[in-house]
Amino acid sequence: MTRIAIDAMGGDHAPHEIVAGAVWAAYEYNVPIELVGKQEDIERELDKIKSEGFLSDCGHRGTKKRINIDVSKLDIKITHADEVIEMGEHPGQAIRKKKKSSIVLSVKAVADGSSDALVAAGSTGAAMAASLFGLGRIHGITRPAIAATLPSLKKPIVVIDGGANSECTPEMLYQFAIMGSLYSKQLLGIKEPRVGVLNIGSEETKGNTLAQETYKLLEANKDKFNFVGNIEGNKLLLDTCDVVVSDGFVGNVTLKVTEGVASLLFRLIKEQFASSIFGCAVGLMAKAFLKKIYPRINYEEYGGSLLLGVKGITVISHGRSKAYAIKNAVRVAKEAVETGLNKKITELIGG
Amino acid sequence: MTRIAIDAMGGDHAPHEIVAGAVWAAYEYNVPIELVGKQEDIERELDKIKSEGFLSDCGHRGTKKRINIDVSKLDIKITHADEVIEMGEHPGQAIRKKKKSSIVLSVKAVADGSSDALVAAGSTGAAMAASLFGLGRIHGITRPAIAATLPSLKKPIVVIDGGANSECTPEMLYQFAIMGSLYSKQLLGIKEPRVGVLNIGSEETKGNTLAQETYKLLEANKDKFNFVGNIEGNKLLLDTCDVVVSDGFVGNVTLKVTEGVASLLFRLIKEQFASSIFGCAVGLMAKAFLKKIYPRINYEEYGGSLLLGVKGITVISHGRSKAYAIKNAVRVAKEAVETGLNKKITELIGG
Repeated sequence: MTRIAIDAMGGDHAPHEIVAGAVWAAYEYNVPIELVGKQEDIERELDKIKSEGFLSDCGHRGTKKRINIDVSKLDIKITHADEVIEMGEHPGQAIRKKKKSSIVLSVKAVADGSSDALVAAGSTGAAMAASLFGLGRIHGITRPAIAATLPSLKKPIVVIDGGANSECTPEMLYQFAIMGSLYSKQLLGIKEPRVGVLNIGSEETKGNTLAQETYKLLEANKDKFNFVGNIEGNKLLLDTCDVVVSDGFVGNVTLKVTEGVASLLFRLIKEQFASSIFGCAVGLMAKAFLKKIYPRINYEEYGGSLLLGVKGITVISHGRSKAYAIKNAVRVAKEAVETGLNKKITELIGG
Repeated sequence: MTRIAIDAMGGDHAPHEIVAGAVWAAYEYNVPIELVGKQEDIERELDKIKSEGFLSDCGHRGTKKRINIDVSKLDIKITHADEVIEMGEHPGQAIRKKKKSSIVLSVKAVADGSSDALVAAGSTGAAMAASLFGLGRIHGITRPAIAATLPSLKKPIVVIDGGANSECTPEMLYQFAIMGSLYSKQLLGIKEPRVGVLNIGSEETKGNTLAQETYKLLEANKDKFNFVGNIEGNKLLLDTCDVVVSDGFVGNVTLKVTEGVASLLFRLIKEQFASSIFGCAVGLMAKAFLKKIYPRINYEEYGGSLLLGVKGITVISHGRSKAYAIKNAVRVAKEAVETGLNKKITELIGG
C-alpha cells in the first residue's frame, strides 16, 4: 500500500498544520503516512489532535471548523530527524551539511523504500536539491522540472517548468512537454492534453531563440503529444491549452504574476464595496458568490507542485500551506504513485 | 505648439475610432493633429463626425454616449498615405516595401518636423521598425524598448521592456531602468520612482544570469535611480515598485498574463452571479461597484505604451483601441513631448 512521507518541519505553519494535514489525509484517503521530523514535536501535535482535534477553514477563507479524527486508528509512523533546513539557507550547501534534516530524511525514506512518495512545504530549493541528490534523475531526463497548476476557465492547466531551471534548452522543454502531458493525462484526467509553448505571439517565428527552437522541436515530435503551438499570456487561462512549457524563469514569473493579479483584484473589489454603506451591504451579499470562486483559484486545492524527472515522487507544497493544502498534497502524491506516472515518463523518454 | 501625428489606418477599429479619438483629443487637449492615411477615408469620417458626432463608452464598458464636437474649429490636417501595413506582414520587410504606408508616413511626419510625436494602433512590430528606421536611436542607447503601464494598488507601474527585445543584455536593462525611471517621473508624476528587477526571488543570487548580472549593474549605478532590488511577480502590483525592468519576452508575458488573469476572474465572477436568480439580483447591484474598478485596470486609460530610446516620441496603442484610448494616447504623446522626456534621457544616457 502506498505510504507517503511528509516533512513535518517544513513551511510557515510547521509542525502543527503539517501534522494535522497528515492526519486528515491518512483518514480521508486511507493512506499510511511517515512523518519525518522532531519526534517529540510530532508526538505532541498528534496528542493534541487526539484530544482536541484541529481547526481548518477547509480551503475556504472564513469560519474554521473543528475536525476530530481518531488518530489511534490511523497508520502513521514517525521517523525522527534532528535538524531542520531553514528558508534562508543555500539549498545545496544545506542538504550536504544537514544530513539529518527532516527534508533529507524524507527523501531518504523514499529512496530506501519505506515510503513511496514525499510531501514537502519547506524550502523549495532544498526539496529539489535533496530529491535530485537522494533519488537521482530518471534515465534520459536532462533536468527535472516543477509542474505546477493554474486555474483556467475549465480544467486546471499545467505550467512546466514552474521554477526549477532558470536557463533551459529546447531539448529540456521538449522533455517538459512529455512530462507535463503525462501529468495532465494521469492526474488531471485530460484525455489528450493540448500542449503549447508560452510565447509572446502566436506565429512560429515569434519570441526568443528558446521559444522558436522549442516550437520546431515540439512540432517535429507531435506524434508524442497533442501540440497546439504558441500560447500568449492573455489566452493562457482561457481554455486554449492544458499544458504550457517554458523555462523556469518565465514559468515562475507567470505563476507569481497570476497570484499577484488575483490578490490585487480582490483587494480593489473589497475597497470598492467598503467605500459606502450601500456598498458594504451589497458586498456582504456578493461575498457568498465571490467566495465560490475561491476554490477555483486557490492553490490549496491542488496541494502542491510535482517535481518531475526524479526517480520518485516529490510534491512541493506552498510555504504557507495549512492542513487542507497538505491533505490535498498527499492525495496528489498518492495519485502520482498509483497511476504509475514515473513508469510512463520512463517509457516515453526512452530510458 | 505640439502637433501629434496619428496613423489613421492602424488597429482593429480604423479609421472610424481612430479619427474620432483624434477629434476628441484635438478638442479636449487643444492639440493640433496630423491624421495620416487614405485621404478620402479620413475626410469621410470627419464629415460623419461633423454631422452626427460619434459614440463612445468613455472607457467604461456599457452604455455609449454620443459626443458632438465642432470639427471645423479644430486644427486637424490630413497627410495622404496610399498604403496600409496589415497585422500579418513581416514588420521589417513591410516598412521597406510600403514606403507610402500610413505608419511609415506618420513616422516621417515626426522625422521631418511637421509633427512632434506619433500615435499608432496598428502592427506593433511595424510601428517599432518604422520608428527605429525613420527616427533613429538616441545616441548611446543600445536598443529602444517598450515602456508599458500596469495598474497597481496605488499608482500605475512601468514595465520596461514590454516586448521590443526578446533577448537582452544587462547593459540594455540598465538603460531601460534609466528610461523607465524618467517615464515614471515625468509622465506619471512619481518623485523618486522605485526601480526593481523582475525576478523569481528577492535575493541577489536568484534568477537567471541576466537577472543576476542586471541586479549587480543596477546596484552599482544606484546613484542614477532609486534601485530597490528584485521584485517577484506576486508582489509586482502591490505597491512594491514604480518601474520594473526585464527583457521584452518576460515583460510581454507579464503584461499579457495580467490581462488574462483579470479577464478570467471577471468571467468567473459573472458566471457565479448568473448561477441563480438571487445571484443575478446581487450581481446587478454589485455591477456598479465592480465597474468602478474597471478604469483602474483598463489599458484604455493609459492610451498606449511608449517606445523609448528613439529620437522622437512613438506611442503604441493596443490594436483594439477605440476613440477613448486614442484620445488618451494623444495625451501621453503630448506630455512626453512637453516634459522633454527625450532630452532628459539623452542627458542621463550621456549621449
